[in-house]
Order: sequence, then C-alpha cells, then structure tokens
Amino acid sequence: MLVPSFEDVLKAHERIAPHIHRTPVTTSAYLNRLAGAELFFKCENFQKGGAFKTRGACNAVFGLPDGQAEKGVATHSSGNHALSLAYAAGRRGIPCHAVMPHGAVQAKKEAVLAYGGRVVECDPSYAAREAALARVRHETGADIVHPYDDPRVIAGQATCSRELLAQAETLDAAIAPIGGGGMVSGTCLTLANAAPGTKIYAAEPEQADDAARSLRAGRIVADDAPETVADGLRAPLKELTWHFVSRHVADILTVSEREIVDAMRLVWERMKIVIEPSSAVPVAAILKNRGIFAGKRVGVVLTGGNVDLAELPWARG
Amino acid sequence: MLVPSFEDVLKAHERIAPHIHRTPVTTSAYLNRLAGAELFFKCENFQKGGAFKTRGACNAVFGLPDGQAEKGVATHSSGNHALSLAYAAGRRGIPCHAVMPHGAVQAKKEAVLAYGGRVVECDPSYAAREAALARVRHETGADIVHPYDDPRVIAGQATCSRELLAQAETLDAAIAPIGGGGMVSGTCLTLANAAPGTKIYAAEPEQADDAARSLRAGRIVADDAPETVADGLRAPLKELTWHFVSRHVADILTVSEREIVDAMRLVWERMKIVIEPSSAVPVAAILKNRGIFAGKRVGVVLTGGNVDLAELPWARG
Repeated sequence: MLVPSFEDVLKAHERIAPHIHRTPVTTSAYLNRLAGAELFFKCENFQKGGAFKTRGACNAVFGLPDGQAEKGVATHSSGNHALSLAYAAGRRGIPCHAVMPHGAVQAKKEAVLAYGGRVVECDPSYAAREAALARVRHETGADIVHPYDDPRVIAGQATCSRELLAQAETLDAAIAPIGGGGMVSGTCLTLANAAPGTKIYAAEPEQADDAARSLRAGRIVADDAPETVADGLRAPLKELTWHFVSRHVADILTVSEREIVDAMRLVWERMKIVIEPSSAVPVAAILKNRGIFAGKRVGVVLTGGNVDLAELPWARG
Repeated sequence: MLVPSFEDVLKAHERIAPHIHRTPVTTSAYLNRLAGAELFFKCENFQKGGAFKTRGACNAVFGLPDGQAEKGVATHSSGNHALSLAYAAGRRGIPCHAVMPHGAVQAKKEAVLAYGGRVVECDPSYAAREAALARVRHETGADIVHPYDDPRVIAGQATCSRELLAQAETLDAAIAPIGGGGMVSGTCLTLANAAPGTKIYAAEPEQADDAARSLRAGRIVADDAPETVADGLRAPLKELTWHFVSRHVADILTVSEREIVDAMRLVWERMKIVIEPSSAVPVAAILKNRGIFAGKRVGVVLTGGNVDLAELPWARG
C-alpha cells in the first residue's frame, strides 16, 4: 500500500492549481446562531464539475508521465468521479474511458461526453463493471484511477482542507461527509500535518453507516449498496482510506434521512446556495451534536452541488 | 421631487456599510461561453434579508434624526421591502409598522415579526392598503418609507453598482431587472456619475412590460397587477424612478415566462446558487440578445434569492 505524504499534497496543489477553482469559504450568521459555533463552509459545490472530485482526478491525470498519459485514463463510476476524470483528461488532451452501467443518469453520461470522454456501457453488477474496466485497460493500456482508493486521488482531495486552513486561519474542528472516505482521508492527511490540534470528524447517513461501524469494530465493515438520499455516500471504505480514518478521525456522527433533507433545505434557504444531499450530512451532524461543537471554530466541507432540480427530496410524496 | 445626488450615494454607503454585506461578484466560464461575453454577477441573493432591498431600507432608517427615528418607520409591502425595513429598524432599535394584505405569504409576515417589526393586516385592495398606512402614520408619527419612490431608498440601492464597479473594475454595460425601478434608478445614479461610458440596460418580463412601453411612449405607462413568475417586478414606475430611467437607460429588453424559468434553472444548475425569478430576467435577456452584449464586459445584478423551495416554477404542471 502506497500511503501519500504531506509532501505529495504540496506537489498536488501546485500541479492542479491551474485547473481547479480555489473555492470560497462562506459563513452564515443564522447557522452560527443555530449551532452555537463559528462555522466555515468550504464551498466545493462551486468547484469545476460541481464537486471536490475534480481535485483528485486532476492530480492523477496531470501527474502521469507523457508516455503513459497518451494511453489515457479509465475508471468505473456512475457519479461525479467519472465527470471529474473526463474533465481532467480533456484539459490534458488525453483519452478518458468511463465504464458506466446502463442505468446511470443520462445527464452524467452526457457530461462525460461533453468533456470529450468516452462512455463504455455495461451491466450494472459490480462484476460486470470490473470486467468491462479490465477489458478497457487491456485494449488501451489506460491508467486506472480509482475514485478514492488511490494515493494520487487522496493527495488531490487533501488540497481542499489546505485551502480551508489558509482561508479560515485556525480551526478547532473540521467535519466532512464520509462514503468511500476519499475526502475524509485527504482532510486527515492535511490536518494531521499542518494543524494537528484540529479534531477531525466525519458525518454519515444512519442508513449507510458502514464507516461508523467500521470505526467501532476496528476493521472495515462494508455494506452491499445501502439506500440513502445522500447518493454520494454509498461506497465502502477501502484499505487506503481505512488507514487514514482509523488513525485520525475522532468520531463518525450519523444522521437520519429526515435530518439530511432538513439541513439541505436550510442551507438552500438561508445561504442561497445549491448543495447536494451528501453536503448536508455534516451540517445535520453539527446541528444534532451541539455539545461537541459549541463555541468552536469548525470547518465544514460542502462537497458538491450536483442535484437533479426536478427531483428535490422535499418535493417527494 | 427630491432627486438624490452621487454625494448622497457616497454618504449612504458609509452609513449602511456596518449593516449590509458587501456581496461577492461571481463569474461562470460556462455562462460566458453561452453568452459570448464576460459576465460579472453581483450576488445580492447573498445580501442580508436575501435581497438588495436592505440597502435602501438601511439608508432610510439610519439617516433619520433621533427625534424622528424613535417614532419608527412604516410601509406597505407584501414582499422583500417590508422584511428589509423591519431588519433595518430592528438594527436601530426603533419600531417598524408593515401594512400587509391578509393574503400575503405567511413566511414573509413571520420574517417581519422575527426582526421585531409589527404587521398591520388589511384588505388587499390598493385603497385599503393606502388607508391603513395613513392610519398608522396618524397614530404613530412613523416615517413612511416607499419601496422605491424615495430618494433615500434610491441612494441606498445605488451602493450596489458602486461595489460592482469596484469589484469588476471596468464594465462596458450593466443590466438589472426592472419593476418599480428602484435598483435600475440606483444603477443609473452611480454609473452616470462614476462610469459614464457604461451603457445601462434594464430587463423586464414580457407579461409585465410597462417600463418598456413607458420608455417607448416617453411617459409612465402603468398596468394594473400584471401576472408574471418574476413576482418582484409587478410594480409600476413612479415619478422619481421615471426620472432616472428616462434619462439614462439605453434600452429595456423583454423576455418570456419560459425564458425566465429556463435562465433561473440554468443559474441554479451551473452556478449552484439560489436566485429568485426576478434575478433570472437579466440573464435571460443577455442570452436572448447576444448581438448587444457579445465581446463586452457586462455587470449583471442578481437582485435576490427569496423563493419558496416547495413551489419551484419548473416543477409546475
């Protein structure tokens, strides 16, 4: 297992800076009152491609030596990682092969194509996706970029909290949503090195609480396709993300589906920004656990803003 | 008629600065490509109270001499102006009486109360509202603050484009939505003095195009309660706003209801910010009139972000 170092984060930041937004950190007097804390929201919903994933994808793509780069990159993903990888590959002018199941959202497939990527359709089972990806690699020699179990990706995601630290100055705590653990691992990597006094929390849907159970059990617990409105948080931890989470995360707080939707709506109404359900998970966790965060300066990663506006969760029956 | 001067704008800006946000100016590579222009969005959706109206209300309230201030302020409004006036009065610790029709949105009444204001309910007819306001003034001696036909309010709204100019540096053109004309008049007041080379446009719904017809007719044309999704733009021009609009506005561009809703959705999806339909009107006008704006640096006032998230226009029938 290749564990990225803080030196890798600094290199990643320099490498990806021309291709990403240094997203703003915003505050809300209303939410501060509600939480009894000082909250600093890192707005990755304003990131290129609408989510933080662009950081890791750009670091992987722009770190490839020329000879490998010309063979392209490949991944299987039905979500933001495929878009981000296609965006990064498009910026470098190399091929991107995205293995996506037949049932994936059409808008996401179109976004991959719009960035100049190629969509390889397959059956939705995990085995079929793995097989399709292996075939792509065999045929093209493309470099496989995993959405989170990849040191280049984690070093890229780690640039987010490096900016947050610079923008918010000091933080008593930081919190991010956890699915596969890429963002949380990057947060651990940066803060453990650059701000070791900052406590790191993760937030997770009750209905997809495999990371919280992993932390309690002391080993990776994986669920098979949990159902939650926070569609970005269904993936299980893997070896590399478990390495960071098990060493550096103080606690993983869980919230109900209702709490996620309420927090999402509160942010839209009060902060006038569009965030996806996954981004609302840490907000809900803060409002639910005032005892932990009261009086503290807390960095909150709003991970993305890609939602289907015709299917908002508060409009559902 | 008391016409505010640029000197009044400078005084207003100093007076209200502690009570408002200096809202950010944002850009979108995607919308720039779509428009073929460089667009600078002044985000008044992030303003205190969720709309630019707080600027004018604060200027009126904080400019009152102490003896008058203690008698309070009053207005009739079913929209953002009542909230903003209650916010400003609350900050100064003086009474605010908001005459609101029985049918006004409950959330808006509650916001007035939450800021410490008093809601005076009345029948919805214009005559009933005027009578109720006259009664409030007689009983309390409160100062009446009209939503736009008031030099203090226009000088306050004018601080918005003063910030925009500082943030965007130079602008070939500026565009804002027009209802009663308070924001557009403030824009004229600032730009005619501080950037006379910047052309000023207004944008209006086809279904409430009284300002466009006024400009063509050379006199105020007023409609009785036009129907449009851009609910902030139903008011007619008045003497003071006509003064500015007739002298400084290059053209008033109109857009259909569909174009407004499409532009609103585009901004939410691509810029990840919540804007109300009125704010989408100038965006729609730019996309519809590429010939006017192509290759130009254009300031666009996003006037507010107060929407009912349970009733989004693209979710209707």
